[in-house]
Amino acid sequence: MSKTPSKSHGRLSIQASAAPRDLMGQAKSVRGAFTAKIITLFPEVFPGVLGASLLGKALQDGLWKLDTIDLRTFGEGKHRNVDDTPAGGGAGMVLRADVMARAIKFAHGRARHPLVFMSPRGRPFDQAMAERFSKEDGITLIAGRFEGLDQRVIDHFGIEEVSLGDFVMTGGEIAAQALLDATLRLRPGVIGNAASLEEESFSAGLLEHPQYTRPADWEGQTIPEVLTSGDHGKVAKWRRDEAERLTQERRPDLWAQFKRDFP
Amino acid sequence: MSKTPSKSHGRLSIQASAAPRDLMGQAKSVRGAFTAKIITLFPEVFPGVLGASLLGKALQDGLWKLDTIDLRTFGEGKHRNVDDTPAGGGAGMVLRADVMARAIKFAHGRARHPLVFMSPRGRPFDQAMAERFSKEDGITLIAGRFEGLDQRVIDHFGIEEVSLGDFVMTGGEIAAQALLDATLRLRPGVIGNAASLEEESFSAGLLEHPQYTRPADWEGQTIPEVLTSGDHGKVAKWRRDEAERLTQERRPDLWAQFKRDFP
Repeated sequence: MSKTPSKSHGRLSIQASAAPRDLMGQAKSVRGAFTAKIITLFPEVFPGVLGASLLGKALQDGLWKLDTIDLRTFGEGKHRNVDDTPAGGGAGMVLRADVMARAIKFAHGRARHPLVFMSPRGRPFDQAMAERFSKEDGITLIAGRFEGLDQRVIDHFGIEEVSLGDFVMTGGEIAAQALLDATLRLRPGVIGNAASLEEESFSAGLLEHPQYTRPADWEGQTIPEVLTSGDHGKVAKWRRDEAERLTQERRPDLWAQFKRDFP
Repeated sequence: MSKTPSKSHGRLSIQASAAPRDLMGQAKSVRGAFTAKIITLFPEVFPGVLGASLLGKALQDGLWKLDTIDLRTFGEGKHRNVDDTPAGGGAGMVLRADVMARAIKFAHGRARHPLVFMSPRGRPFDQAMAERFSKEDGITLIAGRFEGLDQRVIDHFGIEEVSLGDFVMTGGEIAAQALLDATLRLRPGVIGNAASLEEESFSAGLLEHPQYTRPADWEGQTIPEVLTSGDHGKVAKWRRDEAERLTQERRPDLWAQFKRDFP
């Protein structure tokens, strides 16, 4: 990717400020609130989707806090450069160790919660990781851009590299939002219905069974009879069978893991 | 998850309109532009991150178009209900087949490009899928909410289910943005440097080698000598060795696949 510090960023503009910003202007602060800090070149794209629906409400209610740290303000020289060409040559630009180190010291300090770099080289993000992060009091996320981050700063701070999946994006901002969404919804009070959390995909290591709702007859297609039988035992068995069938069909890797975990 | 049609959505408000909206107000339209249509209960969160940086510029330049379709406008009755309780009982709500069918007919019509539902039950999104989608002239994405979508509508339209990974989010909006980011950056003209695309992770089936840039000495830590040797052959070999080492260490699954693909 090329360096684009001076390019237009759509209808949004970068506001340079070293102070962690409180984007939602939420007044409430709840004891034990989860603090998400994000080091990014695009602070204006947060909270983004996280400001809508249940997570947006939880943000307004003070169940979690969002601080964005603009990497640009820690840049070098008059132009606040944050990147340079890769040592050894090659395409694209690499985020500088010294610049990122200053941002990390400012944002993370001596915090004990995880310090994570969103990177396709990292360990794949999964539900178990979301559960682990949701038990912390916060997380500091580095959203990368360009070809990557100088390895020395990763090693120096012992940064945990986490990948959203085996694909490449223009930056880590969407990955950071995905990680936060999956993590924050597991926090107490964010989603009203705990039963909903327990029944869902992956909690049991299986894909979720098919769902149906009204109308009972949609363009001549009806709901499987067992689901309208009122026999809870039969419904539970049907759902379990379907979840196993789907997992076997679609995700032999998950199915193999399931058989190992529950022999 | 509970039904929250009348809740506040942060500082944003829902604008009910059946017409696909042109959120960036881009005037330009380039021949062969990629059209992304998104059926969602939260149209206001788009383009979000996709409006920043290179993809935002490409949107403004007309290299791709974004249409959001507000599912709410296709809802039932005075309250425009889009969901109902799951047949057979259980927590949460399920998106109705009839409501979604109306939205799909409006948004997708007889389009030949892919019709995709973002769902943890789907096939995992990866770079090969991003490459496939990037060769189409557009995509229609359904961002789900609640416990899922009535299976009959999935079957009826032959909807392709795609998963961002083995984790659960509050909705499909971030997943849709991730899919679009990874897909759109592969379109001609979106990222200036094609070499950058070729060198990156996954193109070769391996994780990317470590990167370094200036300063050459950062707090006493130097860049590996080979990278400053000027010997291109040695640099290439070092990078290849590091990519193989990292993949073996971190992703035995990818490594096994690589050995199968390139025996």
